[in-house]
Amino acid sequence: MALLGCGVVGTQVVRLLEEQADDLAARVGVPLELAGVAVRRRDRAREGVDPALLTTDAENLVTRDDVDIVIEVIGGIEPARSLMLAAMKSGKSVITANKALLAEDGATLFAAAREYGADLYYEASVAGAIPLLRPLRESLVGDRVQRVLGIVNGTTNYILDQMDTHGAGFQEALEEAQELGYAEADPTADVEGFDAAAKAAILAQLAFHTPVTAADVHREGITEVSAADVAGAKEMDSVVKLLAICERVPGPDGADRGVSVRVYPAMIPRSHPLASVREAYNAVFVEAQSAGSLMFYGAGAGGAPTASAILGDLVAVARNLVGGSPGPVEVTYASLPVLPMGETVTRYYVQLDVDDRSGVLATVATEFAKHGVSIQAVRQEGLGDDAQLVIVTHRAPDAALSATVEKLREFDSVREVASVMRVEGDE
Amino acid sequence: MALLGCGVVGTQVVRLLEEQADDLAARVGVPLELAGVAVRRRDRAREGVDPALLTTDAENLVTRDDVDIVIEVIGGIEPARSLMLAAMKSGKSVITANKALLAEDGATLFAAAREYGADLYYEASVAGAIPLLRPLRESLVGDRVQRVLGIVNGTTNYILDQMDTHGAGFQEALEEAQELGYAEADPTADVEGFDAAAKAAILAQLAFHTPVTAADVHREGITEVSAADVAGAKEMDSVVKLLAICERVPGPDGADRGVSVRVYPAMIPRSHPLASVREAYNAVFVEAQSAGSLMFYGAGAGGAPTASAILGDLVAVARNLVGGSPGPVEVTYASLPVLPMGETVTRYYVQLDVDDRSGVLATVATEFAKHGVSIQAVRQEGLGDDAQLVIVTHRAPDAALSATVEKLREFDSVREVASVMRVEGDE
Repeated sequence: MALLGCGVVGTQVVRLLEEQADDLAARVGVPLELAGVAVRRRDRAREGVDPALLTTDAENLVTRDDVDIVIEVIGGIEPARSLMLAAMKSGKSVITANKALLAEDGATLFAAAREYGADLYYEASVAGAIPLLRPLRESLVGDRVQRVLGIVNGTTNYILDQMDTHGAGFQEALEEAQELGYAEADPTADVEGFDAAAKAAILAQLAFHTPVTAADVHREGITEVSAADVAGAKEMDSVVKLLAICERVPGPDGADRGVSVRVYPAMIPRSHPLASVREAYNAVFVEAQSAGSLMFYGAGAGGAPTASAILGDLVAVARNLVGGSPGPVEVTYASLPVLPMGETVTRYYVQLDVDDRSGVLATVATEFAKHGVSIQAVRQEGLGDDAQLVIVTHRAPDAALSATVEKLREFDSVREVASVMRVEGDE
Repeated sequence: MALLGCGVVGTQVVRLLEEQADDLAARVGVPLELAGVAVRRRDRAREGVDPALLTTDAENLVTRDDVDIVIEVIGGIEPARSLMLAAMKSGKSVITANKALLAEDGATLFAAAREYGADLYYEASVAGAIPLLRPLRESLVGDRVQRVLGIVNGTTNYILDQMDTHGAGFQEALEEAQELGYAEADPTADVEGFDAAAKAAILAQLAFHTPVTAADVHREGITEVSAADVAGAKEMDSVVKLLAICERVPGPDGADRGVSVRVYPAMIPRSHPLASVREAYNAVFVEAQSAGSLMFYGAGAGGAPTASAILGDLVAVARNLVGGSPGPVEVTYASLPVLPMGETVTRYYVQLDVDDRSGVLATVATEFAKHGVSIQAVRQEGLGDDAQLVIVTHRAPDAALSATVEKLREFDSVREVASVMRVEGDE
């Protein structure tokens, strides 16, 4: 077995391999031996890692005869992809935590796994230690998954939780998250939703047996979420969460017209189980035709939880090697189209500052009606000259909802569109 | 493929096999064909099941050449055990939902699976459609599970939830559950904790790689839970749940001294995630060394959810057959002893009706101290002549706690021990 990369996750993998060596050997049937650890620079000390195992020649390591399993925790597209492809071509099994690569170019990896009969396992790529991919790949493989709705990024959940609990603004909450190590110095991948979008692509592909890449995912981050948005949610007895949503979209005949895969901050009712997911925890709801609603909850990141997921894959892959046949390979036979965001059906919460005079509500309501958007609830509050108007819609195509809001911005009687947010959780 | 039994679960399996035939074939690589359905009586109509498939000769069916997978949903010990053993001996793979048999004599089944190289899958036996056994068997197999704490019986959770929500008594809540179909006419298996104990045995065995049977499980049902108990829990901002608990017990040297496996009603704080599991839902917390706390939530019973779990196993087993090698077989290499309840460390809530005079609290507190039990909180309320004393202890061996309570019953100043209940969830 070879390890590529020896950062936070890699050192935890090495530690667990050593600490649990006896248990792992008993569970696999043979002892697991670490043959080498590929790193960029050999001169950095790595706690608990035998320096004799370190090498900077990853290309050689992945094809060595004494290696039959390669664990990749380098991250990023290259050289991770080339190394994994070379490993599979040499008949090695591969375990990876690389969500960015799987979401961008999983197809190439899966094709190589099929071609060379190699195992490719990646439980650690989504939601850390929470067993989520294996249940989707295996437990629910005899069912029909309708929807996956989840909190899959701990950093943004921590920030939004702080904003909800302490009324902090985004910037303040982000800085606190950075101080505590929940957010990185460059938080772009998290707060702009790139990380969640990559995970959404992986989940959608598994859930619907259809190819989905990160580029297919409609993505909005949380940088625009304001204290006013969070306060507005509170008044609705709701909470703002960054959600990854994958769902089947039926056509008029009831058959699947396609799938919708999206990541954005949205309000969900406080009574929804996802609303109570605090701090940096992750949780994913899965709705399947026969199984009903399932929820998976736990730590979504961190060295030890991620290493736990990798070791679970390692035992599975090692058992497959001992047994002489690889595990299941992803099948994307369904090939459903990923629909554009405009065709996705959702609900809006809109908060407007308007002139406090008669007729404004009628004008606004008429604009919603013109776009075929039905209003579920309205609340108007006078504030001296101004009035505040809060509108929650019924479900409608996103294109109609956003076109309505664009029109409202042009109205003289609408001074400001103070908050616009999608509403998720059952209507 | 052959199906043994065609009741609530069996008919759902047949329905799903037909409805999802194309998807299943795509996921396995070959079509799945139902060769026969063994029933006790052929003259009963079974909706959606081709009468030509029905047979009363189960012995013949499980060894037929055109059958390579046997799905057992008869339940009970015999003839289920003999049929599954005969099937494995003939080289068939077996899928079962039979928790009673697995908990009573799983060892015989696992030994047969090993001997004949047959697959034995049983996800549906615990917590219905919630993917729980596969995550324990596979995802967490590289980790060290410390504790499993769960609500694994929907009937009793429904009853306790009604008692909590509406202040109903046990009998009243049971009758309502029976009317709604959540409880059977003879509710013994559920309300006396037999069903939960069987599941606890299966979970403990998987979590700790150690043999555990239903007979090893300390079991208390919910028939003695009173409206006063539930009201007492409310005052503690807690809720009463029937919990299945499996945990490692460390010795003085930190190594495992054994495992504790038990089922009883206990108070848990309302802030604990398990407290919000309502109605007939199930949820299981798993605490692992590296993965941290994980929770799995969903419908724990019902025909369709159970059938979904069976079909997940079916795809896995069929893929193993296509691939030419069986999946992992249970290993119970650890062989840790199951400790008696008296040695299990837990906490007690005790509510006493006492004489309202000075010195009573001192007498009671002294008795706890004599048994080495430390008190965490006391609340005394005068009620005319009487006073009510509520005591919550710190953690102590169950034997010491129960001995203390037995002594208190003998005191003249203690008129009644009104409620005794264990307290779970972190101290």
